Amino acid sequence: MRLVVVGGDAAGMSAASQARRRLGADRLEIIAFERSNWVSYSACGEPYHVAGYVDPLERLVARTPDQFAEMDIAVKIRHEVTEIDLAGRTVAVADLDQGSRSQVGFDHLMLGMGATAIRPGIEGIDLPGVVELRTLDDARLLRSVADGGPGAAVIIGGGYIGLEAAEAFRYRGWEVTVVTSGPSILERTIDPDMGRTVVDSMSGMGIRVVTDTRVRCINGTDHVVSVGCEDGETHPADVVVLGLGSRPEASLAEAAGIRLGETGAIAVDARQRTSVDGVWAAGDCAEAQHRVTGRAVNHHLGTIANKTGRVAGINIGGGDAEFPGVLGTSITKICDIEIAATGLRLSDAIAFGFNAVEGTARGTTTAGYWPAAAPITIRAVTERGSSRLLGAQIVGGPGSAKRIDVFATAIWTGMTAGDLAWTDLAYAPPFSGVWDLIHIAARKADDAAR
Amino acid sequence: MRLVVVGGDAAGMSAASQARRRLGADRLEIIAFERSNWVSYSACGEPYHVAGYVDPLERLVARTPDQFAEMDIAVKIRHEVTEIDLAGRTVAVADLDQGSRSQVGFDHLMLGMGATAIRPGIEGIDLPGVVELRTLDDARLLRSVADGGPGAAVIIGGGYIGLEAAEAFRYRGWEVTVVTSGPSILERTIDPDMGRTVVDSMSGMGIRVVTDTRVRCINGTDHVVSVGCEDGETHPADVVVLGLGSRPEASLAEAAGIRLGETGAIAVDARQRTSVDGVWAAGDCAEAQHRVTGRAVNHHLGTIANKTGRVAGINIGGGDAEFPGVLGTSITKICDIEIAATGLRLSDAIAFGFNAVEGTARGTTTAGYWPAAAPITIRAVTERGSSRLLGAQIVGGPGSAKRIDVFATAIWTGMTAGDLAWTDLAYAPPFSGVWDLIHIAARKADDAAR
Repeated sequence: MRLVVVGGDAAGMSAASQARRRLGADRLEIIAFERSNWVSYSACGEPYHVAGYVDPLERLVARTPDQFAEMDIAVKIRHEVTEIDLAGRTVAVADLDQGSRSQVGFDHLMLGMGATAIRPGIEGIDLPGVVELRTLDDARLLRSVADGGPGAAVIIGGGYIGLEAAEAFRYRGWEVTVVTSGPSILERTIDPDMGRTVVDSMSGMGIRVVTDTRVRCINGTDHVVSVGCEDGETHPADVVVLGLGSRPEASLAEAAGIRLGETGAIAVDARQRTSVDGVWAAGDCAEAQHRVTGRAVNHHLGTIANKTGRVAGINIGGGDAEFPGVLGTSITKICDIEIAATGLRLSDAIAFGFNAVEGTARGTTTAGYWPAAAPITIRAVTERGSSRLLGAQIVGGPGSAKRIDVFATAIWTGMTAGDLAWTDLAYAPPFSGVWDLIHIAARKADDAAR
Repeated sequence: MRLVVVGGDAAGMSAASQARRRLGADRLEIIAFERSNWVSYSACGEPYHVAGYVDPLERLVARTPDQFAEMDIAVKIRHEVTEIDLAGRTVAVADLDQGSRSQVGFDHLMLGMGATAIRPGIEGIDLPGVVELRTLDDARLLRSVADGGPGAAVIIGGGYIGLEAAEAFRYRGWEVTVVTSGPSILERTIDPDMGRTVVDSMSGMGIRVVTDTRVRCINGTDHVVSVGCEDGETHPADVVVLGLGSRPEASLAEAAGIRLGETGAIAVDARQRTSVDGVWAAGDCAEAQHRVTGRAVNHHLGTIANKTGRVAGINIGGGDAEFPGVLGTSITKICDIEIAATGLRLSDAIAFGFNAVEGTARGTTTAGYWPAAAPITIRAVTERGSSRLLGAQIVGGPGSAKRIDVFATAIWTGMTAGDLAWTDLAYAPPFSGVWDLIHIAARKADDAAR
């Protein structure tokens, strides 16, 4: 029996590892194809390599092809799967270095193609110096750019990757401008007022954030020199980082006739089965069910890729696992400002038909008298009447953001804000006030729900 | 109608504040008696004042008598309630400065006497230089001692207060020895092997920890000079800090005929009512129900005092609140080592009749490649068969200990370890691995439960 894995990052290689744990090499052959030079790496760590904080680049690799070979998992890098033949149970594989093509049969097919950066059709987008930050090769390139500076960096987009790239270049002493079309940053995960707190902090770090405008063109002849915006301003740029989000890599599956969901990602059930028997999908290219809305979503997060890959691999290996769904929990930091979110914002909740309200608490990360006390804001969203928690956001100083895990756990279990407000959370002066700000936000959200 | 409050710290003043919010001064007179010089202060912050990290001492005071007066709450410091006459609905009050006595009638009586340090009957225990660390006056005294150093400090007892005092004196450059009768430190909250991790770190900071021996005598004529132990060793001491725990201050209630529970603290129901109508108790002097065992417990923690005081005050004010119980969640740090626990240890769980097992995960606080990654150990305890979480302990570097709140929330809701192992917790390289160590500990505990 043979398992073919398409895409060698978190989802695909988690699946391969779990399948191998359950079935030895005598019972299951595993071949993974990866079109880039790298497998099983931490994309989330890339901005920190660009910043020079994590070195060398290879530290971001969890397991090399050689290490997989020791587990009897064959990894072929620089090999791209170009077609899936479901009737013949084969994939067409292009060897990108040799230029050769081959057909490889499979019994199980694991799809973990991930996502690709969105590249808008802007004039100049293909100029040298306009770079994404997705693969380790991207990270290596941007690191060499950063090393050659300082200069001026323009980041297009105010999402997680954009902000982390902004921090990286700022950390290296560059002039950094973030251009985003929304009224604030991180507009898909936190509310505009929470975002503005982050923008204020970024300004304090010398990062310029230009909101409410779109990029009109990227200027240059043989290399980018500036970015022109619809507001009429032109920002000098020695490098441009595209941080406009990503879309699922589902075209290979779609072409083969594997069903996509309404998000555009591959539709899967809780066991990570696609519409085709023996074909599995996980990670960025697959949908997942949101536990609050019950709807299919397509978040591109390493946590989900690892978990869903694990579920697929357990099932491929003959085990029995179901993926229990996602809340879209996310976290980052920009210098000393930490940001996290889980579940739904008020606006999301209302859009999904919830009669929702919110409570916001502002305080300090530690006891107020603790010298290192830093501001923190926590917002909790609840359903009116039931007081069931639907979501939460946190922005604050060091020690703030991992508090989101309490909300994620509470929302996961269907807890009410009223119940969370009395939970026996840990207190000591270096860690929180005697009432953690979680309690106070929950209490406010509970009051609002009544 | 008059509310008399006995004891002016967290429980009593939380109750007074909540009662006042619900009933104006025209409907409820509130008088609080406090025998010390201070009300409404953070005892948990005292070690950090001794260390010179939090200054001045008054920063630890949340509200002064004058601030309570503005809320129409009369606070009488240096006034000790010496007797409760339940038949006459009066208390006898001694003015400690004037030496006078008076009778004060009450409609509601709120008991928040707190706890007193355990003072063993050791030779020399009453020598000058042998000090507790409970009240702000204690903190002021120990700070002046620390300022007069450096010298040699001996801490008797390996509990939270003892360790925090040890850190404080070490921080000030003192020679510090902690003497404890158990095989490790924090023996009432964490397992011996977890404690030894802490002891190793303390040794690295130059704090000497002497386990498995008792103090035989405290030597000196007009001031302490050394501490003699049963193992034959004598430790020079310019100051001795007693950190042997505390017992509930329930004698006043007991003498009046108010029922105590089997822990020796005042028995209360979930509304904080004692056995006598109109008499309420909260905080260290009262029992609380443990949510895992269902048994009455008496933990001396600021979190519980604030919450139970709030419940009492809401009810005194005509509202309707029930205290949902405790898990005994606790947290501290000793220099860079963070320690936290919630619920039951394996040994506790077995003693309470649970068929319990545990899982332990060792890893790093952040992504492994993050330069600031520090070791962290998480242990989770579950019930065999059901996999219900019963408790957890964490010891590790910066960013470790507040993770206990996820376990506290999970245990609070009756979550299983298997469910927690898939929860959508936040991940980014500065905050955790892609599988948080919480996930891994929960998975191991779930595996053990099967």
